[in-house]
Amino acid sequence: MISVLEAQEFVLKNAEKLPVITLKLEDSLGYYLATDCVSPLSLPSFRQSAMDGYAFTHTNETRLKVTGQIQAGDLSTPHLKPGEAVRIFTGAPVPDTADTVVIQEHTTREGDTLIIEKLPLPKANVRPIGEQLTAGTQVLDRGHQINEASIGFMAGLGLTEVKVYAKPKVCIITTGNELQERGTPLKPNHIYESNGIMLQNALKRLGILNIQLLNAEDTLDATSKAVHEALENSDVLIVSGGISVGDFDFVQQAFQDNGIEEHFYKVNQKPGKPLWFGIKDDKSVFGLPGNPASSLTCFYAYVLPHLRSRMGSINPLLNKRSAILSETITNIHGKTLFLKAGVNGNTITPFTGQASSMLNTYALSNALLLIPEDTEQLNAGDAVTYLDLNS
Amino acid sequence: MISVLEAQEFVLKNAEKLPVITLKLEDSLGYYLATDCVSPLSLPSFRQSAMDGYAFTHTNETRLKVTGQIQAGDLSTPHLKPGEAVRIFTGAPVPDTADTVVIQEHTTREGDTLIIEKLPLPKANVRPIGEQLTAGTQVLDRGHQINEASIGFMAGLGLTEVKVYAKPKVCIITTGNELQERGTPLKPNHIYESNGIMLQNALKRLGILNIQLLNAEDTLDATSKAVHEALENSDVLIVSGGISVGDFDFVQQAFQDNGIEEHFYKVNQKPGKPLWFGIKDDKSVFGLPGNPASSLTCFYAYVLPHLRSRMGSINPLLNKRSAILSETITNIHGKTLFLKAGVNGNTITPFTGQASSMLNTYALSNALLLIPEDTEQLNAGDAVTYLDLNS
Repeated sequence: MISVLEAQEFVLKNAEKLPVITLKLEDSLGYYLATDCVSPLSLPSFRQSAMDGYAFTHTNETRLKVTGQIQAGDLSTPHLKPGEAVRIFTGAPVPDTADTVVIQEHTTREGDTLIIEKLPLPKANVRPIGEQLTAGTQVLDRGHQINEASIGFMAGLGLTEVKVYAKPKVCIITTGNELQERGTPLKPNHIYESNGIMLQNALKRLGILNIQLLNAEDTLDATSKAVHEALENSDVLIVSGGISVGDFDFVQQAFQDNGIEEHFYKVNQKPGKPLWFGIKDDKSVFGLPGNPASSLTCFYAYVLPHLRSRMGSINPLLNKRSAILSETITNIHGKTLFLKAGVNGNTITPFTGQASSMLNTYALSNALLLIPEDTEQLNAGDAVTYLDLNS
Repeated sequence: MISVLEAQEFVLKNAEKLPVITLKLEDSLGYYLATDCVSPLSLPSFRQSAMDGYAFTHTNETRLKVTGQIQAGDLSTPHLKPGEAVRIFTGAPVPDTADTVVIQEHTTREGDTLIIEKLPLPKANVRPIGEQLTAGTQVLDRGHQINEASIGFMAGLGLTEVKVYAKPKVCIITTGNELQERGTPLKPNHIYESNGIMLQNALKRLGILNIQLLNAEDTLDATSKAVHEALENSDVLIVSGGISVGDFDFVQQAFQDNGIEEHFYKVNQKPGKPLWFGIKDDKSVFGLPGNPASSLTCFYAYVLPHLRSRMGSINPLLNKRSAILSETITNIHGKTLFLKAGVNGNTITPFTGQASSMLNTYALSNALLLIPEDTEQLNAGDAVTYLDLNS
């Protein structure tokens, strides 16, 4: 049995990057850059007024003659002589013959005469060419996750396309004869299937939309066939349930029969001990425990970072943060514990109801409190580490 | 001029909830519940084995006769007599005539005889009916934002639909004659339009996809017409640029001409002072400054919480968190400052390049450092407050 850290190392080391694709900038939100981004422009690309006011060549003369105006977007600018000023607006080009803009609130007008009441410093309110950046500068690194600000930024550089890593096609196979589809009254001794739709939506939150959902009967033949079909059609396969060693758990055998190489089985953690991970060519395969909360914890700790890494992230794990524990926790298991918890301000409170079958508390959690395997007790008031579920 | 807190109060007080709609559970990720969710079921709904092993009635007898097996999903269970046990698997129904499950690792078999090597406590490894929750319990509150865990949880309750608040239709109008579409070489004194696509993607990240993008020429007539069209077709109107008092800023006049009631204009903040907010009937209208970084800061501080509130969130503001400042910051403005910053571990570092025209640093920011208007200096090592841009 390997440790949580070892298992995370395995899934990150075996995360081959997906192919590089070219997307329109407007469709690239959430993707990771596959190349460094170099600016084709200087910003600003012309000398620009930062305010509404008057452009002039700096002088101690406080009465100037207004000879015209320049609006943002004007293609040319007037030539100013000494003693002249020109009305100018934010974003408009500053004439070569001016070096300073006085803001309108610091002036008055008498007809064509401008009276400067508060003289600005030379060069005030003029944005020089390249103030923000010069052409040829590397502005974003490979691995940057594209957000609304970087989209706006790249748009301002005139970029229309970006090279990013593709997102994976994922197949989810649910197993278990006790599972029933929603929409009909629950049969005796059955439960409504929930892991498929849960994992599908966890993927959706990562921007992964190409998802196939299969259900396999609890027979070796059905399980093997489903695994075979999934390997044909997807980059990543997630099987939920059937991974322990009960007589009716056919998943491991089905993995073997399909030629998937086991990288590890079982992690020293609670919940989610019977986690399986393997590789076949460029396909990655996860066998998750069937209990919903175990399944989701394994998703956050292993599947999510693996997927992000394949999508090009250089920082794929959920963020570790620190908070103050509200109550005493013991760890009698010698395992790493992941406890569903709520962080409020600087305080973290683990929920009552940690059993691996219980999703009600997960629905309310924004954190997983992390108790290391060699920590037997944490006390109220201790600074503890948690995984930020929104990171 | 009002304060940041007053402005936030205004936009949250004037955030009428959008209509309640019914969605399929699988399409509800990210929406906010419009009703409390009450469980129609007890979970588990039958006595369930938590492990693979053997079910029996607790006894000190360590040799029992195995009379059959129960698999998860079996519709009926055998009747056990004293001295008998039955093979059972995780999730399978425990017979009424048994009260305990011994895990298989604590047993050996000799033909039909089970030898219990480590006797569990009575009732061990049996999940009683209603252990997680009983039918009729309120399990999720109105205002809960639906995540993958709550989708899985509600699926497990057999729910097929949820009542949520609709998401708004939003129209973005960009203004400014200096703006040029991407795809052609930059004309003199022009800049590539970036605010429209930036705000569109900021909305996308909130799950708002019904977005109309308009560009208005810098004339009162064109601006008024665009505002009119936007009010016809959207719940929320965002105008970017043209909101200061320069001669070519027609947006305020266009708002007035379209009968939009001004709630406030100008906030004591940097960047983003000339922020405008108004209401017409059930439509909300924001006039954002045209500088890209100002525009995005106003989006995060006001537009985003307003939208979340209209979508039903009870906690709509970006999370405030605490970190240690890496360098000394002065605030000579008497205004609230929002500084683009990077949080790494417990340390926050404001970026060089805070000018309101600069998006390059925003692309790298995961936080906005908040400096209150009455704070003149913060020192390296101080605990400071920031807005988490991923919250």
